[in-house]
Amino acid sequence: MAEFDLIARIRARAGARDDVLLGIGDDAAVLRVPAGHDLVVSTDTLSIGVHFPPETAPSDIGWKALAVNLSDLAAMGATPAWCTLNLTLPDADSKWLDAFLDGFLQLAAQHRIALVGGDTTRGPLSITVTVHGFVPHGAALLRSGAQVGDLVCVTGTLGNAAGALRQWQRGVPIHSRLGSSLMRPTPRIELGQFLRGLATACIDISDGLLADLGHVLAASGVGAEIEIAELPTSAVLASKFDEAERRELQLSGGDDYELCFTVPAGHAMDVIAATTDVDFPIRRIGRIEAQRGLRLRELDGTVHAVAARGYRHFDPSHDKTDRA
Amino acid sequence: MAEFDLIARIRARAGARDDVLLGIGDDAAVLRVPAGHDLVVSTDTLSIGVHFPPETAPSDIGWKALAVNLSDLAAMGATPAWCTLNLTLPDADSKWLDAFLDGFLQLAAQHRIALVGGDTTRGPLSITVTVHGFVPHGAALLRSGAQVGDLVCVTGTLGNAAGALRQWQRGVPIHSRLGSSLMRPTPRIELGQFLRGLATACIDISDGLLADLGHVLAASGVGAEIEIAELPTSAVLASKFDEAERRELQLSGGDDYELCFTVPAGHAMDVIAATTDVDFPIRRIGRIEAQRGLRLRELDGTVHAVAARGYRHFDPSHDKTDRA
Repeated sequence: MAEFDLIARIRARAGARDDVLLGIGDDAAVLRVPAGHDLVVSTDTLSIGVHFPPETAPSDIGWKALAVNLSDLAAMGATPAWCTLNLTLPDADSKWLDAFLDGFLQLAAQHRIALVGGDTTRGPLSITVTVHGFVPHGAALLRSGAQVGDLVCVTGTLGNAAGALRQWQRGVPIHSRLGSSLMRPTPRIELGQFLRGLATACIDISDGLLADLGHVLAASGVGAEIEIAELPTSAVLASKFDEAERRELQLSGGDDYELCFTVPAGHAMDVIAATTDVDFPIRRIGRIEAQRGLRLRELDGTVHAVAARGYRHFDPSHDKTDRA
Repeated sequence: MAEFDLIARIRARAGARDDVLLGIGDDAAVLRVPAGHDLVVSTDTLSIGVHFPPETAPSDIGWKALAVNLSDLAAMGATPAWCTLNLTLPDADSKWLDAFLDGFLQLAAQHRIALVGGDTTRGPLSITVTVHGFVPHGAALLRSGAQVGDLVCVTGTLGNAAGALRQWQRGVPIHSRLGSSLMRPTPRIELGQFLRGLATACIDISDGLLADLGHVLAASGVGAEIEIAELPTSAVLASKFDEAERRELQLSGGDDYELCFTVPAGHAMDVIAATTDVDFPIRRIGRIEAQRGLRLRELDGTVHAVAARGYRHFDPSHDKTDRA
């Protein structure tokens, strides 16, 4: 199967939107951003053996390649609209491609996203997705707005994806709940939009809570204290790892794709009340402080400083991990 | 050097524009499309050993990775504005990165393009660039507008890049003029914008004249006759290849990144007159006809049908070629 056949196969399933004036099939896509809105763009590459194990199901790879990008739009409070897909494949395997598209387009359909362009080339398996969304002028959620006294909140639970990865690295069977957190993360798109005008800063947790919250603190020029007792933990994670390892997975493990955001204390109850009907918890885990740096409050009440530390792609100690 | 250091190195040289509300450094870029304009988006991946020889200078790879994408914007008549860069590198080599950025940003600066996002990951060398530009509402040049009687025109000369590739495949020294066509193509950005409202269809020649003109004919539901005598040929190409091979390189070789466009006969003189001061020729090479398919008029005046045929990434006979 030649490149143009692959493209035809993708094009037939690309989806349509009124604001896509020209999709796949010309030199470029022609798109219309709604009046009064800014364009929000993010892009991420996933490579075999670095971002997912070689044995990963193609439909899971497809889902995750889009999900990690949508998670970035969620963190900006953006409404997703369009995406492009650059696929590098070792050979033109139509069965693999169809399964990949099943996962990719299942998530795209959930958010009414049209696939508007991309390309296919030959080489070691690698996927680059670029997503486009909108926010009303000036309404994007940034990393830089956290204020002293704001509460630090996270969505969902922390550590499941890192737990699955740890099991995979140990060669033990991956628990299905942990595995689905790793390979089928749910980007918090609707919550991100809800947080516009409420949250002062927001980021998605891709490299680990400490590392990503560290970015918010650096961009905002503030510090924070996090309470270990408040870290949201799934029952499965608690049952599979001891206290010390669970804590490490929750603080430094990546790939959760939950949102970490800051809200003024006066808005926190609004956020929690308004989101009681979403199917994931929102948890207050700490507070923004004037003193720079990140501190942990232990279960016994003692407080100590900790370095923001997360995943590094070029750190040789992380040769086969799964972070985007 | 870790990923964040690479990103810091890129960010320091990314450039600025008033319409970039937020560039590199958050979860996504926030951008503003000017009122009354459509957004034009294109993306291409270049992989080592497929799109460029492993010994290619990093600055040339950088230039070309952006150039092939800008050429797509040129073919739409778009004004470029922003780009993103996904770099997959075998190791975090700051010297390589700096040289790559030299070439990439040299071309970006020529067109006032800001680098607004991207990522770095580890793996076999691969580069994905996504470019964004604008056209006034509804003014994009499409492949689908060619009309019977229109003249078929091309910019520059044809075959130089394919000639360089042929020399490389044969292991003979690459002539510098041919080599610069291959590795430092000039996207015809200004001409593309000039053609808005004049050309009826436009495409860039990345896969070869026959293949790319074939896309225009298929999209427009027309045919064309091309005159072999009119193919624009560089003196170097003519001196290095015999007649038969030169002709094959010009018709089926890729990577020229010239524009092929159609204009009503009544506008053709306007286009040629208005572009006499550009530093590359514009040549009328044929005419759009009602009869479907592509025909060649030979030097002796005979006419015969020819198949549109260009590069296929998944054709195993093209394992080490250089097309985007």
